[in-house]
Amino acid sequence: MRTGKLIAFNGSGQPLELKEYPVGPLKTGEILVKNRYTTLCGSDIHTYCGVRQEACPTVLGHEIVGEIIEIAPGHPGTDYNGDKLQPGDIITWSIFSSDPNSTFSLEGIPQKGDKLFKYGHALIRENDPFHGGLAEYCVLRADTGILKIPASLPLPIAATLNCAVATVAGALRTAGGLTGKNVLIFGMGMLGVSCAAMCKEAGAAWVGAADVSDKRLEDALAFGADELIKMHEDNTDVVELLKSKFPKKGADVVFDMSGSPDAMELGMDVLAIGGCAVWIGAVFKNRKVALDAEKIIRNLHTIKGLHNYNFDDFKYALDFLEKSWQKYPFDTVVDEEFSLEDAQQAFEYAIACKPLRVGIRI
Amino acid sequence: MRTGKLIAFNGSGQPLELKEYPVGPLKTGEILVKNRYTTLCGSDIHTYCGVRQEACPTVLGHEIVGEIIEIAPGHPGTDYNGDKLQPGDIITWSIFSSDPNSTFSLEGIPQKGDKLFKYGHALIRENDPFHGGLAEYCVLRADTGILKIPASLPLPIAATLNCAVATVAGALRTAGGLTGKNVLIFGMGMLGVSCAAMCKEAGAAWVGAADVSDKRLEDALAFGADELIKMHEDNTDVVELLKSKFPKKGADVVFDMSGSPDAMELGMDVLAIGGCAVWIGAVFKNRKVALDAEKIIRNLHTIKGLHNYNFDDFKYALDFLEKSWQKYPFDTVVDEEFSLEDAQQAFEYAIACKPLRVGIRI
Repeated sequence: MRTGKLIAFNGSGQPLELKEYPVGPLKTGEILVKNRYTTLCGSDIHTYCGVRQEACPTVLGHEIVGEIIEIAPGHPGTDYNGDKLQPGDIITWSIFSSDPNSTFSLEGIPQKGDKLFKYGHALIRENDPFHGGLAEYCVLRADTGILKIPASLPLPIAATLNCAVATVAGALRTAGGLTGKNVLIFGMGMLGVSCAAMCKEAGAAWVGAADVSDKRLEDALAFGADELIKMHEDNTDVVELLKSKFPKKGADVVFDMSGSPDAMELGMDVLAIGGCAVWIGAVFKNRKVALDAEKIIRNLHTIKGLHNYNFDDFKYALDFLEKSWQKYPFDTVVDEEFSLEDAQQAFEYAIACKPLRVGIRI
Repeated sequence: MRTGKLIAFNGSGQPLELKEYPVGPLKTGEILVKNRYTTLCGSDIHTYCGVRQEACPTVLGHEIVGEIIEIAPGHPGTDYNGDKLQPGDIITWSIFSSDPNSTFSLEGIPQKGDKLFKYGHALIRENDPFHGGLAEYCVLRADTGILKIPASLPLPIAATLNCAVATVAGALRTAGGLTGKNVLIFGMGMLGVSCAAMCKEAGAAWVGAADVSDKRLEDALAFGADELIKMHEDNTDVVELLKSKFPKKGADVVFDMSGSPDAMELGMDVLAIGGCAVWIGAVFKNRKVALDAEKIIRNLHTIKGLHNYNFDDFKYALDFLEKSWQKYPFDTVVDEEFSLEDAQQAFEYAIACKPLRVGIRI
């Protein structure tokens, strides 16, 4: 019987553990993938550090590309674009699978559908250990969104697609059309820089990038930001800048990729009348955000939260990367590469150096 | 020269003052109206009590119906429905006028357009004293939305149209389609009861009405609420009710008409995944609303603020009242009627008895 290695995460503060499990027979509609490349997402690092809790032991890693090894009977045999799938194809897949006929799926929120399963977040079981990126294999459940990756797209870039870049695609959809809009983005990590580039490609008139870090602002510039805004303790200058810069006295759209309550509050202060704030970054515990309801009402403001993405966002993200990865420095996103066996070093490097991404070549 | 009486408001705590001014010649595009009926809106009462500040002296009252006396040259001569206007017609008009070619107007937010003027909120000037409901006359500026009131609609009901009912129409538009939706409304004043009736007529599956007052909940029942929810200090029972009642574990839409931060916070706790909270009530200073951004993100929640309404909302409100005023007890909304000269008594009665509306028959 085929066996495969995986890196078990047993809880924050405990060493990662290299283990080997048999690769069991597939069930109806499943696909066996040999993982080729995984990037560590911010939420993987949050879990590693104990800021987020997951049931343990688990296999972390959900930004994954891999090669199809076997397609079980019952799978439609095509990807989300309708292209035929076969062994040897390089693919990536949605971070989740869920029942496509459940209420939320039918309402365009499959990421909250019934029978939700999330890759890189599940318990290792004897008969079901392969469902994360820090492993040699991944078994794709039925009703997972799958996209074939064109040969021209480098694996380290393609890996970032199914969490960061697809979530940003969802953020743009949530914000509505961006043509001619003035957009401010808080938090210039992987989400933020992808958002800057995607907003430019979507026709935004002006993209501002806000962060506390000079290094991250420098990244943002390369990813298309028109103006860099250094955040301080007192950000009245940012409010003044945005109010004076545009005829509508503020940004049309504000994206929060930082998760910082300070940034989300500031974002509301710089939003034009009728503007929309999209919140994505705050997927961990933090203090509450304090909002002036009267201002939200008198300014006809909208706030929208988005978690994960739907399959159309996923497709939009691939189309965007395919078209634009060479226009922006996506090839510099992975700062350092490690082997699967060195996953622990990869996490320690990510924590110490805070690059946009660390890669695991499997 | 024609003269007219008005009730001057000189500031909170000061007696209202009956004054007489000449009715000056109209300017291009203006219409002279003889006010026939005004209802006191919650915000009039807030201003009277000093909770809101207006430049003084002013003529309060913006929920008005009146009779056309004269149409100046330069007015298109039709109402927002395209119906011909002539002296003797009973009309109501939007709470504001603004430049229809300014950015916000063109974006569907005329209530924030350039050259904004608001009836019932302006300074009394020697040559421009008539612009509120507590007066014998009102001069309608060019670019005011006007609607003819059908003879079948009683004046006290028609008067509530151009603030409360039109704002509720805007709230429904802001929430999106309500067919089959489960809707919870906080605050069962005039906005809340109108909202309950309008949601039922718009096809909502379930309309819950929440308030701290038994009397107001009783009103809500008559205006179509399916379930009454008494608010207490601890509202965990409300959260439990909404979570257990619906398959999506919460309401699809929550309207806040109360302006209470407690209600807005509770509203987020009872909102289903993908649900939308529309805030309208909080148009006065209050403590900030404390929101858990992580919950907003993971639940894909939307919050939308709305202030006033656009002309389509205004038309929707009239159509709604015309069709439905006899189906719900809109004829009981005005609890007591006063003359223009007794406006002070009207305010005192409104403050003491908190009816849905007090009427001024002019």
